[in-house]
Amino acid sequence: MIGVFDSGLGGLTVVKEILNKLPQYKIIYFGDTARTPYGTKSAETVNRYSIENTEFLLEKGAKIIVVACHTASSVSIPTLKKTFPEIPFFEVVTPSFKQALRLTKNKKIGLIGTRTTVESGIYNQLFSQADPNIKLYANPTPLLVPLIEEGWLKKPETRRIIKKYLIPLKMKGIDTLILGCTHYPLIKKVIQEKAGKRVKLVDPSEEIALEIKNFLKNNPELAKNLEPDGEPEIFVSDITPNFEKIAQLFLGRKIKLKKINLE
Amino acid sequence: MIGVFDSGLGGLTVVKEILNKLPQYKIIYFGDTARTPYGTKSAETVNRYSIENTEFLLEKGAKIIVVACHTASSVSIPTLKKTFPEIPFFEVVTPSFKQALRLTKNKKIGLIGTRTTVESGIYNQLFSQADPNIKLYANPTPLLVPLIEEGWLKKPETRRIIKKYLIPLKMKGIDTLILGCTHYPLIKKVIQEKAGKRVKLVDPSEEIALEIKNFLKNNPELAKNLEPDGEPEIFVSDITPNFEKIAQLFLGRKIKLKKINLE
Repeated sequence: MIGVFDSGLGGLTVVKEILNKLPQYKIIYFGDTARTPYGTKSAETVNRYSIENTEFLLEKGAKIIVVACHTASSVSIPTLKKTFPEIPFFEVVTPSFKQALRLTKNKKIGLIGTRTTVESGIYNQLFSQADPNIKLYANPTPLLVPLIEEGWLKKPETRRIIKKYLIPLKMKGIDTLILGCTHYPLIKKVIQEKAGKRVKLVDPSEEIALEIKNFLKNNPELAKNLEPDGEPEIFVSDITPNFEKIAQLFLGRKIKLKKINLE
Repeated sequence: MIGVFDSGLGGLTVVKEILNKLPQYKIIYFGDTARTPYGTKSAETVNRYSIENTEFLLEKGAKIIVVACHTASSVSIPTLKKTFPEIPFFEVVTPSFKQALRLTKNKKIGLIGTRTTVESGIYNQLFSQADPNIKLYANPTPLLVPLIEEGWLKKPETRRIIKKYLIPLKMKGIDTLILGCTHYPLIKKVIQEKAGKRVKLVDPSEEIALEIKNFLKNNPELAKNLEPDGEPEIFVSDITPNFEKIAQLFLGRKIKLKKINLE
């Protein structure tokens, strides 16, 4: 069983990609909708929530854990590895970093995401270790999640705000842009349009699914151990009619949410 | 001691008004910034959080509790009164309802707020009991809180979104508009401009402060019992540099936040 957690429902874009590329495994998902969003909260609080979410997925039988939340991926991986030393963790940052490194030609890379993701400095750290000539231009874009969750995917207001957020990055001449939040694949087209067609987008949902696929190919023992097959199970810490609508939007199909109280 | 809680920092606009009108009492505030916002969450979850927040304030010595959060005011008061039968609770809905009732001439009242506040139907219930001829036109405006917390108080994008949200209410010919969220006093000017100068705004922060003042005048015993004087203490469940900036914006002065973990 593959366990996936996120601060809310955005991680279902990751589940969708894993289901595409690895349909043979069962997925169990936890979305922390009662405490969402993580992107405005402190690293200490996000770490505490990440540990609780992981405990829940392990109790349910997960053998590997996918941290689908960019904020948690940016700040909580060291804490999670220390707390659960025997569990393989996957996060959305490293695969996106690697793909951006492959794609860029002029070594000017852009990053958009929540305030906590951008301010964590994790991407800066990875790029400066890999190639000190790379320039990373990051801009926090905290309004995009509420706009997406409002369903305003193509509204003029959303297009204007995206344009406004991308202007400083375009002025730097970036040729690659990392979508540093699992919600953003839903507005990929508008982002591409406003970034310009010469800018290549890095979609973390696709990259992490490929990373897991490779890992399981190289670890056949563990792969055999993952309970095969079965419908994905989606747990959340809070349910509202709007959450059910959003879940369907992100996963691309109808799904029943199950409520669980972690606190 | 007067205890005040909110889902986050918006309730500090209420604290500001209480300090203006009742400077002789000490205020203790709890902002649930680790689980903010409440406005997108279910009534069940909001009830659970409201009980925990009240317990914390009572332990700290509060004798009356002010629910500064519109979402919690809309859904949690019956639960709170049942759980803490001896504590006087104040909430932001009833005073706003009464003031709107006094102000309206054409009996067409508008309401903006989070999805949970608007969908709770609490205002509908109050108005239809008070006067069946009153028509309440409500529109959820979930993007306003993120825009305000981003500090985009006067940006053209914010103005456009406010205009868009108010169009359906203006078309109904409302003459009174309830600002159903403690954040909104910060964008009152733009709201007034977009609503038109003939529309009277109801600011719940002002109304609840007046309500408490009246209550204490009529309950001198209890008033004497409230620990007088002293600087307000502001507790939060999470601290980030951005939260400190927002707190200052809402309270209108510099203040030190103290972190406390409720879970």
